Amino acid sequence: MQFHLNGFRPGDPEIFDAAPGREPPGGDMPEVVDVLIVGSGPAGLTLAAQLAAFPEITTRIVERRPGPMEKGQADGISCRSMEMFNAFGFAEKVLKQGYWVNETTFWKPDPERLERIARTGRIQDVEDGLSEMPHIILNQARVHDMYLEIMRNAPSRLVPDYALQLRSLTVDPAGGDHPVTVTLERLDPGRQRETVTLHARYVVGCDGARSAVRNAIGRELRGDSANHAWGVMDVLAVTDFPDIRCKTLIQSASEGSIIVIPREGGYLVRLYIELDRLAAGERVASRNITLDTLIAAAQRIFRPWSIDVKEVAWWSVYEIGQRLTDGFDDVAPDATRKPRVFIAGDACHTHSPKAGQGMNVSMGDAFNLGWKLVSVLKGRCTPEILHSYSAERHAVAKDLIEFDREWSRIVSERPADTATDAAEAPKFQRYFIQNGRYTAGMSVRYTPSLLTGEATWQSLASGFEIGTRFHSAPVIRVADARPMELGHTVKADARWRLFAFCPGEDPGEDGSMIQRFCRYLAASPGSPVQKYTPAGADVDSVIDVRAVFQQGYRDLALERLPDLLKPRKGRFGLVDYEKAFCSDLKGGRDIFDLRGVDRERGCLVIVRPDQYVAHVLPLDAHDELARFFDGFMLA
Amino acid sequence: MQFHLNGFRPGDPEIFDAAPGREPPGGDMPEVVDVLIVGSGPAGLTLAAQLAAFPEITTRIVERRPGPMEKGQADGISCRSMEMFNAFGFAEKVLKQGYWVNETTFWKPDPERLERIARTGRIQDVEDGLSEMPHIILNQARVHDMYLEIMRNAPSRLVPDYALQLRSLTVDPAGGDHPVTVTLERLDPGRQRETVTLHARYVVGCDGARSAVRNAIGRELRGDSANHAWGVMDVLAVTDFPDIRCKTLIQSASEGSIIVIPREGGYLVRLYIELDRLAAGERVASRNITLDTLIAAAQRIFRPWSIDVKEVAWWSVYEIGQRLTDGFDDVAPDATRKPRVFIAGDACHTHSPKAGQGMNVSMGDAFNLGWKLVSVLKGRCTPEILHSYSAERHAVAKDLIEFDREWSRIVSERPADTATDAAEAPKFQRYFIQNGRYTAGMSVRYTPSLLTGEATWQSLASGFEIGTRFHSAPVIRVADARPMELGHTVKADARWRLFAFCPGEDPGEDGSMIQRFCRYLAASPGSPVQKYTPAGADVDSVIDVRAVFQQGYRDLALERLPDLLKPRKGRFGLVDYEKAFCSDLKGGRDIFDLRGVDRERGCLVIVRPDQYVAHVLPLDAHDELARFFDGFMLA
Ligand SMILES: Cc1cc2nc3c(=O)[nH]c(=O)nc-3n(C[C@H](O)[C@H](O)[C@H](O)COP(=O)(O)OP(=O)(O)OC[C@H]3O[C@@H](n4cnc5c(N)ncnc54)[C@H](O)[C@@H]3O)c2cc1C
Ligand SMILES: Cc1cc2nc3c(=O)[nH]c(=O)nc-3n(C[C@H](O)[C@H](O)[C@H](O)COP(=O)(O)OP(=O)(O)OC[C@H]3O[C@@H](n4cnc5c(N)ncnc54)[C@H](O)[C@@H]3O)c2cc1C
Repeated sequence: MQFHLNGFRPGDPEIFDAAPGREPPGGDMPEVVDVLIVGSGPAGLTLAAQLAAFPEITTRIVERRPGPMEKGQADGISCRSMEMFNAFGFAEKVLKQGYWVNETTFWKPDPERLERIARTGRIQDVEDGLSEMPHIILNQARVHDMYLEIMRNAPSRLVPDYALQLRSLTVDPAGGDHPVTVTLERLDPGRQRETVTLHARYVVGCDGARSAVRNAIGRELRGDSANHAWGVMDVLAVTDFPDIRCKTLIQSASEGSIIVIPREGGYLVRLYIELDRLAAGERVASRNITLDTLIAAAQRIFRPWSIDVKEVAWWSVYEIGQRLTDGFDDVAPDATRKPRVFIAGDACHTHSPKAGQGMNVSMGDAFNLGWKLVSVLKGRCTPEILHSYSAERHAVAKDLIEFDREWSRIVSERPADTATDAAEAPKFQRYFIQNGRYTAGMSVRYTPSLLTGEATWQSLASGFEIGTRFHSAPVIRVADARPMELGHTVKADARWRLFAFCPGEDPGEDGSMIQRFCRYLAASPGSPVQKYTPAGADVDSVIDVRAVFQQGYRDLALERLPDLLKPRKGRFGLVDYEKAFCSDLKGGRDIFDLRGVDRERGCLVIVRPDQYVAHVLPLDAHDELARFFDGFMLA
Repeated sequence: MQFHLNGFRPGDPEIFDAAPGREPPGGDMPEVVDVLIVGSGPAGLTLAAQLAAFPEITTRIVERRPGPMEKGQADGISCRSMEMFNAFGFAEKVLKQGYWVNETTFWKPDPERLERIARTGRIQDVEDGLSEMPHIILNQARVHDMYLEIMRNAPSRLVPDYALQLRSLTVDPAGGDHPVTVTLERLDPGRQRETVTLHARYVVGCDGARSAVRNAIGRELRGDSANHAWGVMDVLAVTDFPDIRCKTLIQSASEGSIIVIPREGGYLVRLYIELDRLAAGERVASRNITLDTLIAAAQRIFRPWSIDVKEVAWWSVYEIGQRLTDGFDDVAPDATRKPRVFIAGDACHTHSPKAGQGMNVSMGDAFNLGWKLVSVLKGRCTPEILHSYSAERHAVAKDLIEFDREWSRIVSERPADTATDAAEAPKFQRYFIQNGRYTAGMSVRYTPSLLTGEATWQSLASGFEIGTRFHSAPVIRVADARPMELGHTVKADARWRLFAFCPGEDPGEDGSMIQRFCRYLAASPGSPVQKYTPAGADVDSVIDVRAVFQQGYRDLALERLPDLLKPRKGRFGLVDYEKAFCSDLKGGRDIFDLRGVDRERGCLVIVRPDQYVAHVLPLDAHDELARFFDGFMLA
């Protein structure tokens, strides 16, 4: 964490100074905003937390519910989402409070006595080295709380406006700077039916599966509607089932399936219990499924183990099918008009809860959109980039829907239909293993576009695959010899990162690759750092340059590194010492080996503000670097 | 973290439910309290945070200052203090916000050109494996904030009463349950000179070097009085000195010495600058040392490197010598009366800031005393144990004073007096390396007493040295396969821990060591668990039993482990799954190897509430175990 740049300030550095006029937070709805977010679920809050860091952007977030959520809904946090939480600065709290999924176990009918379940396998939940972050389970409501805290402590002191729902939305393409007109309706007691009208530059519908924003822009969720119902309950229970603290998939011979999700705090557990398939058009409500039905079903499936439910914190019957909207904004892909309204999260795609993707993919949508809105609103990037949101995230959602459809089918298969012999691992176990990267959130890969380069130079760093998330690895910070994760330098601050992986030569030599690279960036008028950093701003405020050396830190002379790696910043011109890193030479931790970086040539890895690798280039491909940024940035 | 034991509760699990009547916190001073703490420095706050968890104990903490401290004073946090912070639950925040001391470097005059300094060495600051925690630098004020948060969120919602100072204190040994009478004086504007009188069972003077509590009990700080002055300043500065982000010791040829302590946030740095030796009885104030003097001295010492100070967050001239009080309570060691008044921290001992021990040892004092007060006030232990506070901590302080005297002398020696030849590392570098364990806070070793056993069975676990702090090591939790640190199960909750390290046999077998051990504890009327757990309380509420197995977790059957390792707790009788652990079999991490535990016989390690190893015994030494607890516990 860096702070005190512009002078010592007592108190908690994670509580930023409020921007003028932002303390106390809240206040009346303005008539005009830059961004209106509708809905404060995981998608809306991820976006709000991102925008809250920029008080020069007027953001509001409205929520129909009367206050913050307290329990229920999703609870799976993938490794990828943890990496994103780290960029927002609250991963360590989630690590502390959440349940860590280390092991997944599989049970099916004991072949000798089919009415009893028996363990058929246990596997490590996340493969080694996939992420520096574990797979976590924590109540969606707690995740909301953490975002709300980030927002409250951000310079713009953003808090949701509760009990306020979107009623209508129209876009007038000729409507000037604030072409979206929105009518909101108050729901708080005493003020019901009062409405507020406001004009926004952009509106983002994070308003869930029944999205009013989606309807207003004429988009539709298509696909299988609710076809299969599962009961879900968060319980405090006493059981002798030995795997109750592991994520567990159980297929009984004739009583159905259960997924056990141990929960935070050591006692709570979530059970997903398979219910019957619904007829076409049938709603689960018509079945009158009660909590007692669910508990009784669980007890049958767990046999011969007993389970005695003492308290039910939350329960629901969940009947969502796999559905997808064909576009996530208000324009056709080939339209010349730029998008003004977006939808994210469940508003775009719904899926079964079983793969634990709902919250993760929704947050991923918002994180993809957030920096793009910031960049356009700050005049850093052409509005052209806003098209990429729908393009990139629609592809992700499509994959997800397919994965989920397959996974749902497999989990619900009768074990008898699948197991050919007792020794063979059941299909769901094999499928689970194959798809580990998927459920960890690591399978996302953006294809070449304005924002994502071609794989021409991929071989210079085979482990930083273009279009995938920047895979962190251990490094040592040169100035203070601190062991750390390189990926943790990427914060949710809408900045681009250039990671220069250097050849083994002495970086102090005038002719070394890194000296030439830094000279180009710092001095050439055509370099992206020169062109796109506003006058008077810190040199790293738009594009943040960092270097990674192969040498041990004791073999590097800080005083001879290029000035760009020791930039002077803030009102005092203080030196930022956190730009130069080197390999951690303790066994098996060398980032050059771990990520397949060419030791002879080095390379440049360009990382987007949302942590995805945008490009890999040779360190001396100065023109190509400039061209890449010239494609979407504004001087 | 464990929570939801007595029912699901929404919101932040680190904010406990307030005990009845404790919300909102504060209110008028009661006439009678169990414990009055005087002073809210590191000692007072450590004690207050410990007591705050027990709302049935009435605690107040008074502080002369008008509000929380904002900057200045100490900043060094030893590995040992970090381990303690972890027991309080805020280590992860200190890890995030603090500076990590990884490397210490040494500079002295360049033998070729004596007017220039040159680096003579650099060493890893903390030896590998000494602690799972790093050595951290963070402003004392921020440490205070973290304690204040723990207190505010604890069931007793404890907040200091500011602007209130102790004026007098008397003990009337015949004064019944509340024999200490204290007069407090208000300092807040408008109420000055108002006094409050209250009666306390115990008073703890954490009121610093000029302790009024110490004076009231007739104790005196003895030793070298202020003899050597150092200037200290926390600055934002621009320098080309390459080690400004490493802890650095510089001895110039003729301009004096500097210690560089990089600080949190990446920009701030503390400089300790040697000033002249004071004459006997001379006060540094008489020298009229100004900030400019300090800055100019620093600039001379750093030559040929430049340093340009941009902002001074805090500065002081610090002139404390090594002094010690002969006893830390109000009774003679051989008195039959039990102590009623204690002093802790700087009230007992003062030392130079250079070894960075002030805050650490003060917190260590309070942590030692805290659980003893809790145990006596809750009727769990005989008041006899209160004598051990002064005995144990006086010995620690005496060591510290000696170490500090030697260290101060060495740092202030002219380099010419010490370096025999240029190739040899300077004395201060050699001394620093030798004393790494000392400065990390790991050298404390309590000698045999009521609370600390004899080393008879030490060979069963050579790495858990009796009397030293329980040295954590990695383990895997059996129920959920979670990799973690065994030491992190020890919380600041005044409970005792029994760690049963098991032989390699099958623990499910009826005759196994662990089955017999658990049967003894759970069923024998003479066992300490049976005798000292109050009726109706959870079985682990006084003595918390945990087991560590040699097998991999997949080779253990949870269902066959003794019930005591799966205890039923709370109002629902839920199962606590966090009692059984096993070795982490990934290379080099096996706790049996790391701590030299006898694999054939296993052993029992008894850990005090303040994380010190009280005893090591064979697992079947049931009588010796009982005798140990019978020595100080009350049924
Ligand atoms: C009842 C329920 C149970 C679920 N259970 C599970 C589960 O067990 N496991 C799992 O993985 N996933 C579950 N999910 C799905 C998971 O919660 C979602 O995938 C995730 O929350 C999607 O995030 P989101 O931000 O896109 O939408 P949501 O979390 O749905 O948030 C949308 C928000 O918008 C608000 N809103 C809606 N319309 C308006 C309006 N017109 N004006 C203002 N505000 C509006 C809503 O009140 C809501 O707060 C469940 C979802 C629901 C609704
Ligand atoms: C000015 C100063 C500078 C220091 N600089 C350094 C440094 O650079 N490096 C370093 O390692 N250590 C430094 N120290 C020492 C370090 O801060 C102490 O070792 C540490 O704070 C001791 O903790 P403590 O809780 O025992 O006492 P303190 O932190 O001194 O706390 C005592 C508290 O008691 C209060 N108090 C005193 N008398 C009364 C009364 N009668 N009634 C009510 N309240 C009272 C005081 O206001 C104070 O808040 C410094 C100390 C001081 C005073």
